[in-house]
Amino acid sequence: MTAQLIRRDDIDFLLHDWLRADKLVDRDTIDAILDLSEKLASEAFLTHYKRSDVEEPAFEDGEVRICPAIGDALAQYAELGLFSAGFPEEQGGLGLPYLVCMASFAYFAAANVATAAYPMLTVANARLIAAFGTEAQIDTFARPEIDGRWFGTMCLSEPQAGSSLADVRTRAVLDGRDALGERYRLTGNKMWISGGDHDASENIVHLVLAKVPREDGTLPEGTAGISLFIVPKIFPDGARNDVTVAGINHKMGYRGTTNCLLNFGENGGALGWIVGKPGDGLRQMFQMMNEARIGVGTGAAAMGYRSYLLSATYARERLQGRPAGRRSGNAVAIIEHPDVRRMLLQQKCYVEGALALCLYCARLVDTAEDCAEDAALLGLLTPVAKTWSSEHGLAANDIAIQIHGGYGYTRDFDVEQLWRDNRLNPIHEGTTGIQAIDLVGRKILRDGAGLLVLEVKILETAEMARDIPGLAEFANTLSATWRTATETIQVLRRREANAALDNATPFLRAFGHVVTAWLWLDQVVAAYTLRRTAPANTKLAKGKHHACRFFFEWELPRVGPMLTFIASKGDVAATAPAGIFG
Amino acid sequence: MTAQLIRRDDIDFLLHDWLRADKLVDRDTIDAILDLSEKLASEAFLTHYKRSDVEEPAFEDGEVRICPAIGDALAQYAELGLFSAGFPEEQGGLGLPYLVCMASFAYFAAANVATAAYPMLTVANARLIAAFGTEAQIDTFARPEIDGRWFGTMCLSEPQAGSSLADVRTRAVLDGRDALGERYRLTGNKMWISGGDHDASENIVHLVLAKVPREDGTLPEGTAGISLFIVPKIFPDGARNDVTVAGINHKMGYRGTTNCLLNFGENGGALGWIVGKPGDGLRQMFQMMNEARIGVGTGAAAMGYRSYLLSATYARERLQGRPAGRRSGNAVAIIEHPDVRRMLLQQKCYVEGALALCLYCARLVDTAEDCAEDAALLGLLTPVAKTWSSEHGLAANDIAIQIHGGYGYTRDFDVEQLWRDNRLNPIHEGTTGIQAIDLVGRKILRDGAGLLVLEVKILETAEMARDIPGLAEFANTLSATWRTATETIQVLRRREANAALDNATPFLRAFGHVVTAWLWLDQVVAAYTLRRTAPANTKLAKGKHHACRFFFEWELPRVGPMLTFIASKGDVAATAPAGIFG
Repeated sequence: MTAQLIRRDDIDFLLHDWLRADKLVDRDTIDAILDLSEKLASEAFLTHYKRSDVEEPAFEDGEVRICPAIGDALAQYAELGLFSAGFPEEQGGLGLPYLVCMASFAYFAAANVATAAYPMLTVANARLIAAFGTEAQIDTFARPEIDGRWFGTMCLSEPQAGSSLADVRTRAVLDGRDALGERYRLTGNKMWISGGDHDASENIVHLVLAKVPREDGTLPEGTAGISLFIVPKIFPDGARNDVTVAGINHKMGYRGTTNCLLNFGENGGALGWIVGKPGDGLRQMFQMMNEARIGVGTGAAAMGYRSYLLSATYARERLQGRPAGRRSGNAVAIIEHPDVRRMLLQQKCYVEGALALCLYCARLVDTAEDCAEDAALLGLLTPVAKTWSSEHGLAANDIAIQIHGGYGYTRDFDVEQLWRDNRLNPIHEGTTGIQAIDLVGRKILRDGAGLLVLEVKILETAEMARDIPGLAEFANTLSATWRTATETIQVLRRREANAALDNATPFLRAFGHVVTAWLWLDQVVAAYTLRRTAPANTKLAKGKHHACRFFFEWELPRVGPMLTFIASKGDVAATAPAGIFG
Repeated sequence: MTAQLIRRDDIDFLLHDWLRADKLVDRDTIDAILDLSEKLASEAFLTHYKRSDVEEPAFEDGEVRICPAIGDALAQYAELGLFSAGFPEEQGGLGLPYLVCMASFAYFAAANVATAAYPMLTVANARLIAAFGTEAQIDTFARPEIDGRWFGTMCLSEPQAGSSLADVRTRAVLDGRDALGERYRLTGNKMWISGGDHDASENIVHLVLAKVPREDGTLPEGTAGISLFIVPKIFPDGARNDVTVAGINHKMGYRGTTNCLLNFGENGGALGWIVGKPGDGLRQMFQMMNEARIGVGTGAAAMGYRSYLLSATYARERLQGRPAGRRSGNAVAIIEHPDVRRMLLQQKCYVEGALALCLYCARLVDTAEDCAEDAALLGLLTPVAKTWSSEHGLAANDIAIQIHGGYGYTRDFDVEQLWRDNRLNPIHEGTTGIQAIDLVGRKILRDGAGLLVLEVKILETAEMARDIPGLAEFANTLSATWRTATETIQVLRRREANAALDNATPFLRAFGHVVTAWLWLDQVVAAYTLRRTAPANTKLAKGKHHACRFFFEWELPRVGPMLTFIASKGDVAATAPAGIFG
């Protein structure tokens, strides 16, 4: 292994000791997949990290070409069966739990997120077809994706409809019926389509949100009128569909992933087959989006993680300055400076915390179908996992630049690109503001079931921690902070419904810190209790304990003032006259 | 004016109503300079902002070429006399206060910081020569810089000596004496030299830190042995000096400013003239660096400021979504969403706060020479102005991307470049960690004079604010937070000297928020009292008041937990075993 992407002992700890992945699948299988992922990510994804940043997608003569190394890497990814890993055997897959798929994905995202995005999107696309499509649709469209021969996209946004999907204007008119189902003719423009066109797969399967017009030709209002369509770039018979690339976006980072403006139906109408019934589109898409959000969080955590490992290595190798009070003698490695250790601790808290949070959610995906409590908890934690990991993975990337000093600001080191790449994550798959409304509006105020499950879990962890030396104080802090958070929620419940959302984002930030504090403490409890006899785990437990301490002493105390603001003030933004800005 | 860079009414308010610039120079002169700066910045600097990012400096055949638009803009800058603005008339300048120069610089930094860096460096260089050089050195080297014909650099860092200047290894051996003073022969490598080579000026004047070896050939240890030398690229007689470009750094942003690795004396020794006496180097350089740090802070604030204005404009124009609770009807401008207003308020707090802080310091530069209290306060606030503005200007840039959504992540908008460009500011001219040690170690624990001055000012502001409707609560909060900060300082004073620096960076962050809170309140007091009858100022006062409220309700409360951490915990980073990282 040439480069370390994510600590394997941490992943092993999280999967086996902490999340008990053995209850889902045997350990040998997991080990084999992780070995394979780590190796392929290092040898085929990491190797073109810089190259695919410099050799951006090019749009010429209506076609998009991408850096050939991306296609080569993905061909290997397909050959090793990794596209299929999470699908049941009857669909050509390996039947691995989502948890293991996410752990595998973390390696690829750490190595090269822009390349890893193609299979992430393709798998999400195929899962959606597999969940809601007909047998014929699955065979025709999902199977080639599961094989990794065709790639997939999600076509949601339009130039005028980004966060607000209710405003989608793409029209779908019934054209007929065939073996693949009800066939529609689509016309409209889709914006921000990742993987929208490229030359790395035989075909591209677009999943498109569109509205079926009423009899008078008008489009139904709101999100209820949205339907979902399978619109291939090339039909199964080899003919081209009426889907054209209008342009590509030139991004700051994440450049290897093409991002296109697609025109559907410029020449009479793109043909597509409806998935499920008219009006089902958003509900279906949301099931996929929830998983995609955990994927985004995992990717953000992984990018932060690699930058943390790069920082630790750099801090051990770079000689600069002397301990405070010593004016002569040899320079020491900068890891000797308390300020650098503080930065490393902060990174460690952020990236290991974010990874734990996302894998915890992935674990819930595997049981949610059969367990209402897990489903409720998953719903509650998904916007948190997406946002907390995106923001704190990015913060870890920022610290990595600072630890590297001037070197970190140059393109000779990877940390600047990791920072640029990660900046996309708080935006795509629902911005932070959208996640916050989902959390507060939908998951807390409308349906508080997840909150009850979470409370039980948090109090359980606190209870266990009270009996372990050195953790009692954190346990009490966690319980107290949780109490404050629930009191704040009571205040929000009493507030006029719309005003309750005014500070959804600050609430999401505070709530995210509480959730992460809980998982930090829970990790330490697991490290001490589950493997207390295993000497190999001593260093890991010590590191987790120290990071947990930092989180409780430095990070968590910021939550109190945020909750106070939300509960007792909090109208400062809503009452700001628009005229005072700019 | 095609684009708004910084609000002129804000600059006018800060300079005239708040900082009473009329006590330094008449208003007409200031207005003329600001008009000129705003116009030139918009018409010659902003116009190549993207171009000079894409057309990076190129290093070929030993020479560096830069985007020609940079040279053209700087020729106009020189022609208008702006290089000379801050110099006394007898040195060919306009004799303008530093405050006015910084306000002017803010426009150029907002428009194109990489181009504005050349005059910033050149002026700092010339000021240093003017302050410590001989008449002949001033005439020969500073005058062409004041005219804008020659540019200047600061050669401090070496590959092994970044933050730790004590480890400088460049050697200077006495070569003789001539009309320009003691002439030395220099050999060594200098890293991270901004403006180190380019084709935009006739000549480049390097100011180089080097050590004069002892008789046994060894270099004196520590910073006391550092001397300062003037080393021109080309001698006054037109011959080339022995200074060669070994390479250029490819940066993430700030690309228009060349950044070079320079070799001095590869062919026998570069000739340079000492400024002052051997061993004076660091002291002299520090006078310049303190001003440069205010310049860095001002630039960071200005870049944040432009991104805030771009955000406000975008938020008024971009239609997306509806107010909470409304599901149909037309989409509204996103500025109508409380979450977007919150982001704009946060930006406003950061960028107007940072600009106020930096201009406040610039004002102190103008009086520090004749007033020990102002000098002490300036020393205390300089690391704060540098760091707080760098970090919060950058945070405003980050928010600007978020407000722009996916568009902000593309290179079609300027906000992504502003974010990349601004990321340099917490690194160069002393990293955040270095500023923190300067603040806590030198400016607080070693010499507390500045702190006493600051306390008087803070309590004065609070006293005035208590009498103004709506401000009494903030006044009390400010006094209370200040008390907590001073108590924390008492704890630090009692701590073992080296351990007192362990949390210098967290302390700097907390202290920066207290200082900015004070200046926010002071601005509002000024807006209400000084111009209470001027109707034109009503909107400005209202905006300042609302932003101040946001700062006191959302930002300032985070200070308490930070100070508690420093005072009562705070050994978590220093005691972290190095082995737990990575």
